[in-house]
Amino acid sequence: VQRVARPCPFCSGNEHETPPAIDLYPDENWDVRVVPNKYPAVLPFETAHTAAAFANGTPQLFKTVDGTGCHELIIESREHAVSLTDLSSQVLDYVFQAYRDRMLAIKAAGWAYAQIFKNVGAAAGSSIEHSHSQLIGLPMIPVRMREEIQHARSYWDKYRRSLFQDCVEQELADGKRIVMESADFVALCPFASRFPFETWILPKEPAARVETSSNALLSELAHFTQCLIARLERLFARPAYNYLIHSAPFDGSADHCFQWHLELLPRLTKAAGFEWGTGYYINPVSPEQAAYHLRSISVNATRNAQKV
Amino acid sequence: VQRVARPCPFCSGNEHETPPAIDLYPDENWDVRVVPNKYPAVLPFETAHTAAAFANGTPQLFKTVDGTGCHELIIESREHAVSLTDLSSQVLDYVFQAYRDRMLAIKAAGWAYAQIFKNVGAAAGSSIEHSHSQLIGLPMIPVRMREEIQHARSYWDKYRRSLFQDCVEQELADGKRIVMESADFVALCPFASRFPFETWILPKEPAARVETSSNALLSELAHFTQCLIARLERLFARPAYNYLIHSAPFDGSADHCFQWHLELLPRLTKAAGFEWGTGYYINPVSPEQAAYHLRSISVNATRNAQKV
Repeated sequence: VQRVARPCPFCSGNEHETPPAIDLYPDENWDVRVVPNKYPAVLPFETAHTAAAFANGTPQLFKTVDGTGCHELIIESREHAVSLTDLSSQVLDYVFQAYRDRMLAIKAAGWAYAQIFKNVGAAAGSSIEHSHSQLIGLPMIPVRMREEIQHARSYWDKYRRSLFQDCVEQELADGKRIVMESADFVALCPFASRFPFETWILPKEPAARVETSSNALLSELAHFTQCLIARLERLFARPAYNYLIHSAPFDGSADHCFQWHLELLPRLTKAAGFEWGTGYYINPVSPEQAAYHLRSISVNATRNAQKV
Repeated sequence: VQRVARPCPFCSGNEHETPPAIDLYPDENWDVRVVPNKYPAVLPFETAHTAAAFANGTPQLFKTVDGTGCHELIIESREHAVSLTDLSSQVLDYVFQAYRDRMLAIKAAGWAYAQIFKNVGAAAGSSIEHSHSQLIGLPMIPVRMREEIQHARSYWDKYRRSLFQDCVEQELADGKRIVMESADFVALCPFASRFPFETWILPKEPAARVETSSNALLSELAHFTQCLIARLERLFARPAYNYLIHSAPFDGSADHCFQWHLELLPRLTKAAGFEWGTGYYINPVSPEQAAYHLRSISVNATRNAQKV
């Protein structure tokens, strides 16, 4: 926990800097605070601004739709904590409960999908240091999710098996890409990872959607995620990273084949011309090496009551 | 042109720092020098290292293939030029002739596709300041190209028209996303661009593959590209950027529907959790605004004989 020189809009006492809270944990004297994003990427209504499509006899290109959806922030500490690893186990539990609760609320509001994500550090696209996560609810299933679901569905249709479950099972049997394991979760550096030290957390038991998780499971996930990030931060002195949760669409259409998971993407290298041009990623660190290094870090995994 | 304190492996006099040249322009006393990449991302032969696939009764996941291909560098100046805009018109002509000549050579060597790209600045993934481009020849058509070709092919199959030609025609008629125009080329900020100030250069006349270009057309392209980058550099004080050329596969299978083009991707913002999670891009600058600003820059477009 640091004291910050410039006023931080996410610190307690500056609640007027954000729109009014949607939710507070545990109560008015909040540790975790959910607010609408003051600068939303999408809006929950169709705006009057609809660009006219252009046509001159040729097929009509350049059609537009309004960017509808909802965009929420989860502020993860009253004090100016800058890392998830600065949070106490109680506060961390609230953060992951907020993920679940907001997913349920966004589902109830009628959106098709919600993307939970976290940006840490300038190289990961973050402009605010204070520890926070974001959710964006959308009226459709995004392209990356459609691709992931398509792979899982093809595999299901062919083998009547879960691609994610088979993957976890084979990874655990093999072991060389495994970073951590708990009763219900595994963290592994995926086969043919895109980025150095890319690490995914997957539940061991089938579960398509993160919002079905119990408080007990979320608490285990919170602690597990904190331990993984602590390893990464010790290896690279608090590097920039993104993480995101892929969870099956709210309509249940992919529940039979999908497994929710958390993708941790350290931003140690930059996607460059080759990656943007081809969609192939040059990764200078094999996932086997990355898992070895992350495993080798000694982390005091006990929960720290001294934290904020 | 700057003098560099640390020895630069790409400056003349340091030719021993790179593998022997593949090609030199115009002669031994080179202005432009093509070499194999000392640290190649792919190798032209299958290595002995083939990871064993893993199976235990479930479908066999984790299959690997060797990363085969060729990886070349084009060193764009004898002196320590750091920007394409520092190059004289003669040297710039050699650079673009080298693009064409190396595409033809990589085709003749039997590769399926070659990706030309340029990384400028640390934020664009460049580790060497000295102006250079890269080519990677591959045994297959990369995923991003397959997607682009698929869109162009669907459009062709439906309308018997070129998606790229219709796009250029409608953009020119409309004008609000046009940045520059010459006899044979147009530069425009594409509709629904992913990145702020993303700009594409397209030939006005149908041409699927860049390697069919004449010296005269390449010279026009070189000058046109230099003018575009000069505008970007004046607007943002030499920002990091990538550019890449998408050209139809060597086998001619997409020649009927594809148009080669150059994609200029300024690295002014970072792809973050939402972009990696969804495949959707939040772009804070509309292509119409970006084109307006790039158009408004006054550039002395005359070729400068004082340059290196």
